[in-house]
Amino acid sequence: MNLETLPAAIAEAAAEIDTALAVLLPPDAGEEAPLFAAMRYATIGGGKKLRGFLVLETARLFGVARGSAIRVAAAVEMLHGYSLVHDDLPAMDDDDLRRGKPTVHKAWDEATAILAGDALQTQAFATLAAPETHADGEIRATLCLRLAQAAGAQGMVGGQMLDMLAEVATAPLERGAVLRLQQLKTGRLIEFAAEAGGILGQAAAPLRQRLLAYGRDIGTAFQIADDLLDLTATPEQAGKATGKDAAAGKATLLGLLGPERARLYAVELIARAKAELDVFGARADLLCALADHVISRRH
Amino acid sequence: MNLETLPAAIAEAAAEIDTALAVLLPPDAGEEAPLFAAMRYATIGGGKKLRGFLVLETARLFGVARGSAIRVAAAVEMLHGYSLVHDDLPAMDDDDLRRGKPTVHKAWDEATAILAGDALQTQAFATLAAPETHADGEIRATLCLRLAQAAGAQGMVGGQMLDMLAEVATAPLERGAVLRLQQLKTGRLIEFAAEAGGILGQAAAPLRQRLLAYGRDIGTAFQIADDLLDLTATPEQAGKATGKDAAAGKATLLGLLGPERARLYAVELIARAKAELDVFGARADLLCALADHVISRRH
Repeated sequence: MNLETLPAAIAEAAAEIDTALAVLLPPDAGEEAPLFAAMRYATIGGGKKLRGFLVLETARLFGVARGSAIRVAAAVEMLHGYSLVHDDLPAMDDDDLRRGKPTVHKAWDEATAILAGDALQTQAFATLAAPETHADGEIRATLCLRLAQAAGAQGMVGGQMLDMLAEVATAPLERGAVLRLQQLKTGRLIEFAAEAGGILGQAAAPLRQRLLAYGRDIGTAFQIADDLLDLTATPEQAGKATGKDAAAGKATLLGLLGPERARLYAVELIARAKAELDVFGARADLLCALADHVISRRH
Repeated sequence: MNLETLPAAIAEAAAEIDTALAVLLPPDAGEEAPLFAAMRYATIGGGKKLRGFLVLETARLFGVARGSAIRVAAAVEMLHGYSLVHDDLPAMDDDDLRRGKPTVHKAWDEATAILAGDALQTQAFATLAAPETHADGEIRATLCLRLAQAAGAQGMVGGQMLDMLAEVATAPLERGAVLRLQQLKTGRLIEFAAEAGGILGQAAAPLRQRLLAYGRDIGTAFQIADDLLDLTATPEQAGKATGKDAAAGKATLLGLLGPERARLYAVELIARAKAELDVFGARADLLCALADHVISRRH
């Protein structure tokens, strides 16, 4: 049943998050309009917003008010959007296409892309910290702290740095180093998204740990699936340039394990992720379906 | 008296903030060392840390614990450091020299500079949001919110966007537009630094308003003084390229008013800023001395 309802639930959540982003981001007007327009372009209407969906679904487990969950979901997507805008810059991955559209520095220019990314990160924290997100300041401060830990030098940005260094390294990375790189670069933000519902719902520590473990495992599986798509999909299917990772000699689990063993490892991760959610019973059905979806998706 | 003790007080505060930054930023070790090193290079040991000094001195008005004030001062300097690293990038102001040293993208490369700036912003919020900053989560969340408002699309980054747009505009900006640009680009963060002590000290709203007004006026005066220095100082005195603003036709109050009227306006702003502090009596002597210092400094 749930594998059928999942696509509709994801699409519905994405629409809801887009509506929130349209309200939370500065209106596309005034002297600074190009900045505001670039911020909106990079977040609204693009991508499946799976990180935001994770926030909404984990928040649902604890009966969190929808308005709170939506704001946190929007904040996570702002942070994710910022990371994509900066990763696409010429000095970084130098990508011209993202989600089937020109990247921000192509549609505007590099300065606007740098500033739009900067401001999206700031807006993510502004959104979490505002009283509208939750009446309890301790919860808002915890959300800010956990997001910052996931996104900063010892999280996502640290992972991106490792990725840049790996490209110019003389020796290929070993399995442990590749796992760590990807866990930092993409895993930490997915973990935060999964944990966020538990923070909002003031869940007991063991339950928050389960959400984190679920997030960690689907994050790694998601990365393997992404690498497999990069290998096999056409640019039209992926909405971005493909085959670049292999061409650049990027350090991926796929490259280390080969397609067959990588796919098996992803299947094992998904089984483990779903087992973490046993304790929530049927309320976690969509989260289990999402885990299955991560490795079955075709784009 | 205070104009004599001020330089020592500023130097002492800067040393204390540097010590805090050295602890709060990731150690210069491990695989990501270049990222961590660039973050430290951009913040520790450079500049007079006047924004951090503002936090410390306004916090002192309300008897805030020194440990809390130092963390917030360090966070403001991380945020300021990030803005300098990104402003110096080739796609932005394209500067090779900052505080007498090569800029981050010159000492490392553009990718490292983008990532170091990104991570410094994140670390500023992590620092404010952590329980070590204050036991009351409401205060930590308020600090995050106010910093984000000062630094984001409708604050500092919005001002930087206006600055980039002004450079390619066909008509020069009018006085109101120039004031708004500079108030956003440099004023808002200085205002936050001045307000932060009041937030930490749970000051009544009217007192927080006075701190904000003080911050706004010395911020504008500071900008005028900076423009005057850009006009008259040698690169050796300023520790960075000078004369660039005039050459680039940058929109400055100085350019609109001319040196004499600009200097008079700054003097008027400083008198107004000091009047805001009357209510605090002698406890605000150093803040008054700082206001005087802003327009008398030579580098």
